[in-house]
Amino acid sequence: MRREALESRRAAFLGLVRVRGTASRGDLARETGLDKKTVSAVVEDLLAEGILSSAGLRDSTAGRRQELLALNGAHANCIGVDLGATHIIGLLADLCGRALDRVFFAIRPNLPAEIILDQMKSVARSLLASPKATSPVRSIGICVPGFVNPRTGTSLVAENIPGWRDVRLGELFHAEFGLPVRTDDASRSFGLAEQRMGAGRGHDNFLALDLGYGIGMAIVVHGRLYEGSGWKSGEIGHVVVDPRGEPCACGNRGCLETVASGRAIARRAAEGIRNGRSEVLSGLTHGNADSVTAQDVTLAAGMQDPFAVGLLREAGERIGLAIANAVNLLNPSAVVLGGGLVSSQPTLIEAIRETLPTHVMPGIRDEMELLVSGLGVDGSALGAVIAATDAVLEAAEPS
Amino acid sequence: MRREALESRRAAFLGLVRVRGTASRGDLARETGLDKKTVSAVVEDLLAEGILSSAGLRDSTAGRRQELLALNGAHANCIGVDLGATHIIGLLADLCGRALDRVFFAIRPNLPAEIILDQMKSVARSLLASPKATSPVRSIGICVPGFVNPRTGTSLVAENIPGWRDVRLGELFHAEFGLPVRTDDASRSFGLAEQRMGAGRGHDNFLALDLGYGIGMAIVVHGRLYEGSGWKSGEIGHVVVDPRGEPCACGNRGCLETVASGRAIARRAAEGIRNGRSEVLSGLTHGNADSVTAQDVTLAAGMQDPFAVGLLREAGERIGLAIANAVNLLNPSAVVLGGGLVSSQPTLIEAIRETLPTHVMPGIRDEMELLVSGLGVDGSALGAVIAATDAVLEAAEPS
Repeated sequence: MRREALESRRAAFLGLVRVRGTASRGDLARETGLDKKTVSAVVEDLLAEGILSSAGLRDSTAGRRQELLALNGAHANCIGVDLGATHIIGLLADLCGRALDRVFFAIRPNLPAEIILDQMKSVARSLLASPKATSPVRSIGICVPGFVNPRTGTSLVAENIPGWRDVRLGELFHAEFGLPVRTDDASRSFGLAEQRMGAGRGHDNFLALDLGYGIGMAIVVHGRLYEGSGWKSGEIGHVVVDPRGEPCACGNRGCLETVASGRAIARRAAEGIRNGRSEVLSGLTHGNADSVTAQDVTLAAGMQDPFAVGLLREAGERIGLAIANAVNLLNPSAVVLGGGLVSSQPTLIEAIRETLPTHVMPGIRDEMELLVSGLGVDGSALGAVIAATDAVLEAAEPS
Repeated sequence: MRREALESRRAAFLGLVRVRGTASRGDLARETGLDKKTVSAVVEDLLAEGILSSAGLRDSTAGRRQELLALNGAHANCIGVDLGATHIIGLLADLCGRALDRVFFAIRPNLPAEIILDQMKSVARSLLASPKATSPVRSIGICVPGFVNPRTGTSLVAENIPGWRDVRLGELFHAEFGLPVRTDDASRSFGLAEQRMGAGRGHDNFLALDLGYGIGMAIVVHGRLYEGSGWKSGEIGHVVVDPRGEPCACGNRGCLETVASGRAIARRAAEGIRNGRSEVLSGLTHGNADSVTAQDVTLAAGMQDPFAVGLLREAGERIGLAIANAVNLLNPSAVVLGGGLVSSQPTLIEAIRETLPTHVMPGIRDEMELLVSGLGVDGSALGAVIAATDAVLEAAEPS
């Protein structure tokens, strides 16, 4: 068999096993159209190399029991590092994406680029030394906010970090750790995690909303993460909701992020505190209006503070309308709400749930599920780990 | 060779030749990864069957001259029928999509469904009898406004046609003419035409705006027309631009179509005529305000009527903002403006050209070309023909 043909068969089998979780040799033959003898030969290699492992037997309709195959999680460990506006999260996981260890590192906004980079590296370093590892770490996935070119591993710009321009994350981390590195933006990483291990499983076309300090969206269409022509897809935070609105950090005016992001909610809360509109928020921040965060607003809303509830409701209504319009364009079968603003306090989610359907075209509305992410604040980091496991599987050369 | 393998090779070769226009045997071997002997055998069959034809010689870098292959246009003829709000357009074309004959049939709005269907059939019938045919007609493509399920050939709903619900166009036309039928919505058909034979060629990700009586959009991503989970993609006409706006025919409120479609422009023009705001429009319609069309408004704008110019400018600004927001989500490399509202009178296009970039996020803006369709009013009909040629090529069985 020619080398390229063999590689593409291995990749096809590993892709199928990963998507299905488990598959029999018969499943692989059916789905690839290859004969059983070829399938068995390639599978034997993958079992011998320890990339696949046996996952028990399944009763077949024909009466014979079929051996099920799965990825062997212990074949490799991988690291994912997610840079957020207020945190760096690192995950150590096995080849199946099962988390083994986690590092959470709170950061202040507006730290200089070099300090951020050092902190990201030290998060990766501590996971490389984790006693919870089940096998050597073979690759690293990184995700950061803003525009990222995954092909070159370059973070082009991240508005919230002073001096952060054209940061060659892939190169820097490869030089530091000597491992393959995958890089993407945090919202697409979140979408990848939802597609492979979250609420997006089974949906060929869905939107994953990353609602946090900024607002991003991953778009999955034709069963694939859509990156856009310049890797800049999903900028729903910069959809213009009011052409005469406030200036946005991006340079335009009236973007969704100016009225509904975590940053906008915090800014409005600070104004409210200064104007004496919320005793609860004043108390939570000890009167230091500038220190208020969207998390404080969520907390105050949970305490039934009407001002905080109003802020979250308005943000939810704005977000709901923007998502509805994305749904009108893309007719997805699901929308998944996630990110730091999605918490157990229900005000924001309820406002989105009420608003969104009223602006989706009848006919499109009934075909869509509105789901809340179960991945919590680790969604993007998990996506970075999954990208790293992809790197291991794609690099798995025929022996 | 197994039959399925042979069929998929034929399909791959025909697909490549169609996309490239011409290809040598070496090109086909390179792009499919198959060896030259296999390629030559399949190509000989396709030449013998008359599906491919020789298209001359090309000097190769190695010095040997290579025979170029192209689709043989005369192998089959196909018909495309486009139902618009004010017309039915029929095209007869060869297998390469080159138009051979054309029928234009003006219709009045609000005709009952049965009459419309009869007229569509008679358009197809007259093309079947065309003396300009170069070979037998082998398939029919149909496109209509509104929601269409291409898989079942069913037009689910078209708001502008009374009684038009769940019309099984595919079945009806197949029963009438005994030919394979492809059905889709008019905006996606327009996008298909732009992708294969228009301004979208070479763009893996682009948006094609169908600006007419209604407003639709075709989305091409990953090099493929995106249909959505329920075949309802691209409803940019029903993006909500003002949640407190006027009721829309779709059942929602403040959709883009309520302020910027051909229908909305005509409605506003009628109000203007009644209120004595445009002598030019009053003259053009002999004072019969209700008879005014968007075409009349374009004509009046060409005569420098300030009211008409204002209507088109406002519509263009609204459309420009809506497209900008779609661009912020999808980061396409091109946007193609087409449809009946795109005419030689520049007011609307200029307003879109001025407005759109100001609302696209910097960084995404520079990666996008704004293009005007060169297909004129026949764009959707051409897309229907192309879908019909696909049906012929996909049905081409190994002999």
